[in-house]
Amino acid sequence: MAPVGHLDDGSLPVESAAPLGRKPKVVALGGGHGLYASLSALRNVTDELTAVVTVADDGGSSGRLRRELGVLPPGDLRMALAALCGDDEWGITWSEVVQHRFRSEGDLHGHAVGNLLIVALWELLGDPVAGLDWVGRLLGARGRVLPMASVPLDIVARVELDGVISTVRGQVACALTPGRVQAISLVPENPPASQEAVRAVLDADWVVFGPGSWFTSVLPHLKVPELAEALHLTKARRLVTLNLAPQPGETDDFSPQQHLEVLRQHAPDLTVDVVLADTGVVDDLDALEKSAAALGGQVITACVAAEDGSPRHDPRRLASVLDEIFLQKR
Amino acid sequence: MAPVGHLDDGSLPVESAAPLGRKPKVVALGGGHGLYASLSALRNVTDELTAVVTVADDGGSSGRLRRELGVLPPGDLRMALAALCGDDEWGITWSEVVQHRFRSEGDLHGHAVGNLLIVALWELLGDPVAGLDWVGRLLGARGRVLPMASVPLDIVARVELDGVISTVRGQVACALTPGRVQAISLVPENPPASQEAVRAVLDADWVVFGPGSWFTSVLPHLKVPELAEALHLTKARRLVTLNLAPQPGETDDFSPQQHLEVLRQHAPDLTVDVVLADTGVVDDLDALEKSAAALGGQVITACVAAEDGSPRHDPRRLASVLDEIFLQKR
Repeated sequence: MAPVGHLDDGSLPVESAAPLGRKPKVVALGGGHGLYASLSALRNVTDELTAVVTVADDGGSSGRLRRELGVLPPGDLRMALAALCGDDEWGITWSEVVQHRFRSEGDLHGHAVGNLLIVALWELLGDPVAGLDWVGRLLGARGRVLPMASVPLDIVARVELDGVISTVRGQVACALTPGRVQAISLVPENPPASQEAVRAVLDADWVVFGPGSWFTSVLPHLKVPELAEALHLTKARRLVTLNLAPQPGETDDFSPQQHLEVLRQHAPDLTVDVVLADTGVVDDLDALEKSAAALGGQVITACVAAEDGSPRHDPRRLASVLDEIFLQKR
Repeated sequence: MAPVGHLDDGSLPVESAAPLGRKPKVVALGGGHGLYASLSALRNVTDELTAVVTVADDGGSSGRLRRELGVLPPGDLRMALAALCGDDEWGITWSEVVQHRFRSEGDLHGHAVGNLLIVALWELLGDPVAGLDWVGRLLGARGRVLPMASVPLDIVARVELDGVISTVRGQVACALTPGRVQAISLVPENPPASQEAVRAVLDADWVVFGPGSWFTSVLPHLKVPELAEALHLTKARRLVTLNLAPQPGETDDFSPQQHLEVLRQHAPDLTVDVVLADTGVVDDLDALEKSAAALGGQVITACVAAEDGSPRHDPRRLASVLDEIFLQKR
């Protein structure tokens, strides 16, 4: 068990987020590798798990598919499904299949097989959620994967470079901009939310933000009006898992507390119950606690990074810590 | 029950091809739509079914995949698997997915999803048969689908046009040639057979040739040495299901008996037990019986065509007739 700070103090709220005797209903928000890490941990903590995933990718296989076929970018959804695959031979094999990428000098190069499979189901069934549920059944997924919106989105970033403010459109462009991202918005501006995602958030015991690319994977959910409303209204506790390292391009030199400040700027009325930070990334605990308090929350530090020192969460450590938080903060 | 000619005469062999009390082990040879029709019938006749499928396609999605990724052309294998899909919602849905083709103005246009899935499994597992078995499990397939050879093949046709003999290479070119195909061979000339296919043939009670594109789907199996040897050595009975119509390009103006003569030219030592012809396509029963007798076989005529008059086999009619043949010729 990784050490968990602050969990033993007597100041914890005692009201229950999940009744005793059942696993908590958890909604994990994000995209890409960060969400993959979050789900890889959460799958071991609860059997009531829903991922609500960004649909703003415009690069790689996903970008080509949304341009060629006019569909939601499937890549982040595919990764989330793979993270939840069953742990028997069946689930593991199909997970490897959906994650497999073609390598060639031809047209298929770079396409992930699962992206093609998800898009085929969307074309056949005419319903993004039904298609994702079928891939989930294929993988024996331990949880459900939903898009945050029902239309493809573009992220627009306000970027500062040498004192000049400009606008950058597209997830790839945001990640590659030499300037500093200050804020993001979405195009279209008020996209329709996935209704299943809204219901999952309203029905949750815990909502987990991050880890992940802060501007392009974690914050976009707050710019989908119905989803943002649900995230504010839900009686679920809210937990933010901070990143282990700043992300080049997006959050160079960001301190942990700056991540929280940016979150507050994008959703000034959102309160957060727990901010989970790896012990190793907190240089200034007082400053982080102050930023967390501004969101209404409490900092918990624990060793959740991989043992090899790479900036990725260890699924077992993260699971162990989340499990304890969910139990103690029922 | 469709009328079955000749089945009641006392001249039928009485030795048993399959012991009483179990379904016969059937191997169906072919490719494309013809094999799909054969399997659609046979799946209702036996639960011991193996398809041995041509791997010489060089057109469409399959042709692009073999050129881009250096794999066996998967299309005929995919169709055979789809023909065997389970008849519950799971099997039917995944069958529709693997048969689904992308339509666009981009790179994916025309690719069948199942082709991409099969190729991904081949790349992951490094074994064509294991990959096909996994897709079979996905579909809940009622039987096994095997490639006839373990390397991609090209069909080379000797073609006659206005008295001039030429050579045409490739399945697409053979199908499109304005000349008359006289004989086919394979490149490479002596390809390695699928060992599982050889074993299935040797272990069968019945081997079924056709229907299908005669030169490019039915005869190629006889040009794979180990497979041809097994087809000669097996104690299985051999049944030829004749086509319902000549195929433009390949077999224009071919009579039913000419199909048998071409078969005999390509495998002079092969004996056949039963030649099944639709009642409506037999103009000259004497001539057909003579050709069948030259192969050692007997003609059975029955109504096996679709009721709407289109030149395709009706799966239920064909199943009913095959079932009766398999029973009476045990």
